[in-house]
Amino acid sequence: MKLSFPITAIVLEVSMIVLFGLFVKYETEQNTIQQLNVANSTRVDKSLELHPFFRDVHVMIFVGFGFLMTFLKKYGFSSVGINLLIAALGLQWGTFIQGILHHHGQTIYIGMKNMINADFSTATVLISFGAVLGKISPAQMLIMTIIEIAVFAGNEYVVGEIFQASDIGASMTIHAFGAYFGLAVAGVLYRPDLRRGHEKEESVYHSDLFAMIGTLFLWMFWPSFNSAIAETTEQQYMAIINTYFSLVACVLTAYAFSSFVGKRGKLDMVHIQNATLAGGVAVGTCADMEIHPYGAMIIGSVAGIVSVLGFKFLTPCLTDKLKIHDTCGVHNLHGLPGVVGGLASIVAIVLGASKASSVVKQAAALGSSLGTAIVGGLITGLILRFLVCGLSSTEFFFEDSVYWEVPKGREVDDE
Amino acid sequence: MKLSFPITAIVLEVSMIVLFGLFVKYETEQNTIQQLNVANSTRVDKSLELHPFFRDVHVMIFVGFGFLMTFLKKYGFSSVGINLLIAALGLQWGTFIQGILHHHGQTIYIGMKNMINADFSTATVLISFGAVLGKISPAQMLIMTIIEIAVFAGNEYVVGEIFQASDIGASMTIHAFGAYFGLAVAGVLYRPDLRRGHEKEESVYHSDLFAMIGTLFLWMFWPSFNSAIAETTEQQYMAIINTYFSLVACVLTAYAFSSFVGKRGKLDMVHIQNATLAGGVAVGTCADMEIHPYGAMIIGSVAGIVSVLGFKFLTPCLTDKLKIHDTCGVHNLHGLPGVVGGLASIVAIVLGASKASSVVKQAAALGSSLGTAIVGGLITGLILRFLVCGLSSTEFFFEDSVYWEVPKGREVDDE
Amino acid sequence: MKLSFPITAIVLEVSMIVLFGLFVKYETEQNTIQQLNVANSTRVDKSLELHPFFRDVHVMIFVGFGFLMTFLKKYGFSSVGINLLIAALGLQWGTFIQGILHHHGQTIYIGMKNMINADFSTATVLISFGAVLGKISPAQMLIMTIIEIAVFAGNEYVVGEIFQASDIGASMTIHAFGAYFGLAVAGVLYRPDLRRGHEKEESVYHSDLFAMIGTLFLWMFWPSFNSAIAETTEQQYMAIINTYFSLVACVLTAYAFSSFVGKRGKLDMVHIQNATLAGGVAVGTCADMEIHPYGAMIIGSVAGIVSVLGFKFLTPCLTDKLKIHDTCGVHNLHGLPGVVGGLASIVAIVLGASKASSVVKQAAALGSSLGTAIVGGLITGLILRFLVCGLSSTEFFFEDSVYWEVPKGREVDDE
Repeated sequence: MKLSFPITAIVLEVSMIVLFGLFVKYETEQNTIQQLNVANSTRVDKSLELHPFFRDVHVMIFVGFGFLMTFLKKYGFSSVGINLLIAALGLQWGTFIQGILHHHGQTIYIGMKNMINADFSTATVLISFGAVLGKISPAQMLIMTIIEIAVFAGNEYVVGEIFQASDIGASMTIHAFGAYFGLAVAGVLYRPDLRRGHEKEESVYHSDLFAMIGTLFLWMFWPSFNSAIAETTEQQYMAIINTYFSLVACVLTAYAFSSFVGKRGKLDMVHIQNATLAGGVAVGTCADMEIHPYGAMIIGSVAGIVSVLGFKFLTPCLTDKLKIHDTCGVHNLHGLPGVVGGLASIVAIVLGASKASSVVKQAAALGSSLGTAIVGGLITGLILRFLVCGLSSTEFFFEDSVYWEVPKGREVDDE
Repeated sequence: MKLSFPITAIVLEVSMIVLFGLFVKYETEQNTIQQLNVANSTRVDKSLELHPFFRDVHVMIFVGFGFLMTFLKKYGFSSVGINLLIAALGLQWGTFIQGILHHHGQTIYIGMKNMINADFSTATVLISFGAVLGKISPAQMLIMTIIEIAVFAGNEYVVGEIFQASDIGASMTIHAFGAYFGLAVAGVLYRPDLRRGHEKEESVYHSDLFAMIGTLFLWMFWPSFNSAIAETTEQQYMAIINTYFSLVACVLTAYAFSSFVGKRGKLDMVHIQNATLAGGVAVGTCADMEIHPYGAMIIGSVAGIVSVLGFKFLTPCLTDKLKIHDTCGVHNLHGLPGVVGGLASIVAIVLGASKASSVVKQAAALGSSLGTAIVGGLITGLILRFLVCGLSSTEFFFEDSVYWEVPKGREVDDE
Repeated sequence: MKLSFPITAIVLEVSMIVLFGLFVKYETEQNTIQQLNVANSTRVDKSLELHPFFRDVHVMIFVGFGFLMTFLKKYGFSSVGINLLIAALGLQWGTFIQGILHHHGQTIYIGMKNMINADFSTATVLISFGAVLGKISPAQMLIMTIIEIAVFAGNEYVVGEIFQASDIGASMTIHAFGAYFGLAVAGVLYRPDLRRGHEKEESVYHSDLFAMIGTLFLWMFWPSFNSAIAETTEQQYMAIINTYFSLVACVLTAYAFSSFVGKRGKLDMVHIQNATLAGGVAVGTCADMEIHPYGAMIIGSVAGIVSVLGFKFLTPCLTDKLKIHDTCGVHNLHGLPGVVGGLASIVAIVLGASKASSVVKQAAALGSSLGTAIVGGLITGLILRFLVCGLSSTEFFFEDSVYWEVPKGREVDDE
């Protein structure tokens, strides 16, 4: 900590201001140049139509992801606080880097759609953050944000512009990508101590309730996430309906399987907080396709089951066998359901639910997202491990007081 | 627990998928058949206009009701978790059963309005859930959800289609209905132990703050609840304004009377969490009538007073005399204010605030809602008591650890 | 407490109902008189367009301000509860008093814009509430609400109608005004005991997390606050974008400087909860000007730094030297950034970012807001100190159990 963190933050913010000063203008200014004042006000109206979607996605990023991660008993300040920090950086950097890739000419003109896309790029980092939660420093997270968003934007460009694949709700490009990127980083940063379990890697009663705030805001606004950037109003409408029905079905199977695999049929809060959202992830790629409500419900049901089974059987195995420790179980909430989403889109296209893409394009998109994520994550992990100041010992893992002034009697110092 | 719960949940979800596969299509598909592509896009636009109202109601259902019930010190997981579960089931079942009643032909075409109405049907169950909170099992709640929504949809059909009564904010059909249905179930499931009070039926400091999250989201978005399905934009506008002014007035009288009836003038959190919302309930039926802002404020003021007095004097009496134990006091938040709402609409019609309905229609609607609720609730209570696996002893009441893995040292088992 | 509070509340509510009965009508009724039915429905549509902005501002008022103040370990009920109470009163009184000032003729016609403006007037009181939090009684707060909103509306009228200054996001008229008004009241109510620090003026771990709920909802919806009442869609769009970029930049500098000034580089929750919002305050006045995204980012960056430095160095100094005890540090979140906002608008006008106002008008607006706030606050403080029943001893400061029934074992009585 000491100086590495604040200096990194200041340097990054000053860089952002310089980049924005040089390259970024309001969307409306584009029209001023073109002398099209009629088009101008139409564009602004169009832009404001997206405002409600923007706000919903914004709530998911800050309250949804932020509180979802507060389940750890001594890491709530960092969960919600570093979430805010990296989202704020990511929104700036994502706006810029996506602008560079998607716009023509030297200037980036930004409007509501860019702000939504910046939120999306940030979501990717926050998913990866879940895999390394409690194990890396704020300075490391800032660097990871910069690298990951650049890699994400590159893959998104390849998937959308070159492969021309469909991924409206970004099951592949955000969820699977973010999860496998994070897992790759977590693999590189692995410490053998984590195998035995860590006494601070636990929840307390009220921290689990705080996490439910995150779960519910993610759950409620997921239809907006999957429909925000749909091209036509009709696709937007379909994406809302499909996501809604996938989510409700997912809740039922997640509860049922949590009870099935639990001791004496008991429910596990970890499953409820996470697996109930898997339906939103898995329906993402197909959300604007004509999969019918029952099709969405099948996807959601499968996602709920896969996610719970992942938490129960796969996560312990990942830590033991592959030496990848996944704090929030992002593999089960975003990784597997993201892959399910990609595969579902292939099935949907085979069954004729959409003509906008093809099986090959979708398979290429899934392959590209997973491949880029894993390679990008491994390289990022190595950079973070050897070039950026991290935590000296696992004793300081999952512990707010290393980075925060905490109310009396809770301090532990990484010195 | 063990197997009865997960098997019930799986059977219900599979049934829903089958029913939706057979009968439910997108609203847009209706037009494809009719070859009216112009009308099609208009319909979708109209549907998306309701999207912001849908989201507000959705937040009320999941965060509002969910957190409002977290006030119990050891029942927060169940409050927010079972709320999510039964809402997810209710949304599917409500969409189907309301579709069957309101649509013509064999196919149900669904859009945003159906999703809002499904949320409404779910609200009814969640109100009843408040009356039996902590005293029934998740499997019992699933069965109750199925029965209650069917009865609710029947009564709603009678009130709206046959009697043609006004009840835009559903004071009678949702609030009074849900409360008296729940009270009837609670009466049948009554256990004599509850009379002496239960050591776990208490809040702790932070559980009361969690509950305030629920209160505030309900309070803020109530204008959307009461206006979501108004026919015309003008009625929608009026319903928003009237609900707003009823709620603000209700807060003042609820605080004043909480202090009046409290020891040494102290405020009671139970009143603040609940009675401040009674204005939203009570203005529901009249919300789209020209009752003027001051009329709405009078209704809200009365509701706040009635609700606090109900908590103070009526709830203990219900338990002692009628052997009905009402955990959340839904009688005071939804029952009495719902009846006030029905009566207010009669007064409003007499005073000429609306010509859309008549005194007789409104009285019939109120009578039907109360009668159906009580009879339906009694029968449901008997079914739950004798046919579905419940809690063996009051020792396990108000206790999460019966159904949930809870952080160490808090387990109690119903074995 | 005892009777002074409930009687005050009842008298105020009855007065509101009488005032509304005499003077307030629906906006739509205005047209009925004018026989312009076409204009009527247009007006309602226009009114409903503002509905999403209204809801966002509403969330900021009730959840945002309410939870932001729950950081104190024993004052959460009062923070969120009295916040709700004074907001409910303020919304009624603000609607009335602003209506009197802005409308012509004897009747006040209200619509969505009036409701947003009433929320704004309430925000002013809630900011001042932060300065005196834990130190005054609910009855005192009711009286302060009535006086402050009247003074606020007067100053707002002078700034907007007479000086014709720009202040779209109300950096000067709400934030600086509310802060300095509250500080003046706090100065008059100062007690020497506060100098030594108060054992209850502390947070606990979970109370700090509750406060973050407030921070995040304020942060996310601030773009709506600054754009809600913009005249044209284009200004609204610009205000959203500028506020967004000011806020994200502010987060980075607030974190960096919190770490700079912290012991061993540690972050302070007080800074994160508050200083991350300073960017929203400071960009308010300029939000609808063409300051460009990088201009907004510079304003936000400066605000984040100023706010953290204010918490670290100025607040202790205010208490010690000026005998002004500022519980929530509103001087750092609203006072200083509000002044920064006014000054920024002067710079922006000099640099040609807007032609809607002039340097002189803006300077007059800033002077008027500060002057009116300080004089109004001093007079209000004297009235509260000598005419309204307050807390008898500092022993009862920052303590819920003086006014609330609290869960067992936490009572302290002011008798």
